[in-house]
Amino acid sequence: MRIAVIGLGLIGGSLLRALAAAGHEVTGFDADPATRELAQDAGHRVFDSAAGAMAGTEVTVLAVPLPYLPGLIADLAGYDGVLTDVTSVKGPVRALAQSNGVRRFVGGHPMAGTEQSGFAASDPELFDGRVWVLCLEEETGLADWLTLAGLCTTLGARVVPATAAEHDDAVAAVSHVPHLVAIALTRLLDGNPLAASLAAGSFRDGTRVAATRAELIAAMCGGNAEAVSRVLRRVSADLDEMTWTLSGENPVGALLPTLYPAVELRQAWPPAPGAAGRMTAGAGALLTLGRSGGWVTAVDGDQLSTMRPETDRIDA
Amino acid sequence: MRIAVIGLGLIGGSLLRALAAAGHEVTGFDADPATRELAQDAGHRVFDSAAGAMAGTEVTVLAVPLPYLPGLIADLAGYDGVLTDVTSVKGPVRALAQSNGVRRFVGGHPMAGTEQSGFAASDPELFDGRVWVLCLEEETGLADWLTLAGLCTTLGARVVPATAAEHDDAVAAVSHVPHLVAIALTRLLDGNPLAASLAAGSFRDGTRVAATRAELIAAMCGGNAEAVSRVLRRVSADLDEMTWTLSGENPVGALLPTLYPAVELRQAWPPAPGAAGRMTAGAGALLTLGRSGGWVTAVDGDQLSTMRPETDRIDA
Repeated sequence: MRIAVIGLGLIGGSLLRALAAAGHEVTGFDADPATRELAQDAGHRVFDSAAGAMAGTEVTVLAVPLPYLPGLIADLAGYDGVLTDVTSVKGPVRALAQSNGVRRFVGGHPMAGTEQSGFAASDPELFDGRVWVLCLEEETGLADWLTLAGLCTTLGARVVPATAAEHDDAVAAVSHVPHLVAIALTRLLDGNPLAASLAAGSFRDGTRVAATRAELIAAMCGGNAEAVSRVLRRVSADLDEMTWTLSGENPVGALLPTLYPAVELRQAWPPAPGAAGRMTAGAGALLTLGRSGGWVTAVDGDQLSTMRPETDRIDA
Repeated sequence: MRIAVIGLGLIGGSLLRALAAAGHEVTGFDADPATRELAQDAGHRVFDSAAGAMAGTEVTVLAVPLPYLPGLIADLAGYDGVLTDVTSVKGPVRALAQSNGVRRFVGGHPMAGTEQSGFAASDPELFDGRVWVLCLEEETGLADWLTLAGLCTTLGARVVPATAAEHDDAVAAVSHVPHLVAIALTRLLDGNPLAASLAAGSFRDGTRVAATRAELIAAMCGGNAEAVSRVLRRVSADLDEMTWTLSGENPVGALLPTLYPAVELRQAWPPAPGAAGRMTAGAGALLTLGRSGGWVTAVDGDQLSTMRPETDRIDA
């Protein structure tokens, strides 16, 4: 397949290398000349413009950070291949594609590490075993979705079908809000060196992601503001209820009913990937699979191999 | 020195072994016969009663969990050695000692791991490099405090002087509230298998301690209810303010002023132990040392060796 990768940082560079290794005809572009040179020296076909790299391709992956997407997408209304992106919010990107009249757009989010960055840090094995969300909306062509799902699964990714709204709510809960909570916990050290000297494992792990670059946290959380706000309010209400619970006569006993199911939930995570299955592709069935915690492992026409988590403790 | 250790679990057992290895004459007791036998088989002098183990000793360490302290302390008003404990809340234990007329009591809290438990998991090196808070109150005898500080430092511990109230506020911030926040984050997975399947590193680390036994979390947080409530309210207010920040026109830019100092604070933690010093023992000077993030590394009469963190970013 002829595939263009626009943006050759950690994700885009890894993708370029992985797709080339899988035998595809891959072209690339990056706005940074030094990055283009690196990719070229590694033996890849790199162009001086996005349009050049995309000409004649069937699939284009926009692997640029969120702030660069609007400028890029504005030029793509004429492209007739399948388009996808790799950013961490999907609702705003979906709106962007629609407002620019971009057809055949399928929002994507490979959940692969970002501590390092740049083509030099790229790794063709980056996606192996990782979750890759591919969005399914009413306007999504199932054939386009299956094309991308097929590509991602051949790179070893677990393809999770979800709507943009479901994705944004879920990542707000498991990624964006944990960053803001880590920030709030860290702020407790402010002006309290005694607390800093007593802090150990639970502080270290609970605040680890607060050491992420501020710009990255702001971009993730601010870019998904609506869902993040909703989840923040839920966490804050939960903490307020715990404060109320602690105000009674027997705080230890009163806390337990809140703690037991949550501790059990955490001990059951991550759920073991249990039941392998087969299904015929269809938007409704795919979204049901994603909502139950399952994912696609292989695509063969409209026949899909799937996996579901092995748990009766997390209810669909 | 003649020292009794009452309770021979992970902390007490490790202490028994460490003190014996340091050449002290150590006696022990545990309510569980099997634990007594284990300690005896390891070559230690173990008695059938706390009173037996304590007879004639100069120092007794009550290494039992918080719920067992009241019953134990009620019998100790006649003891004339120095008494300390190892539990994670210090205000309630101080009140307990006072209300039972226990003299020469110095509250202690070695911040050593508790994932494992029991004498079988004990380790004489457990305290090496760990923080050990020793409480200094108006009723504390400085000589008694120095006796314990000397023992703890010879085991390699960093002895941090603090009042019970300061200790309880600090551990609420860096340990107890992080547990409850981890619980609140984990509850977001409830009924949401999609979120569970998208959860990765930031969720894993941010909720790690939510897998702790519910009874242990309840005992820690419920036992320190007042300070924990205070800190919970502060975190909740912080999250509410972030929600408000996200509701504006430019959420990304609006978040940054909150994020920058917190990210810097987390990147500066843990502070490098920088300036070694000497001081003459005195309650005021010791508490000032603790409040600035410092600790005692060695005791020689009333001459102390100290260490302070190397940072200008966390202000005293």
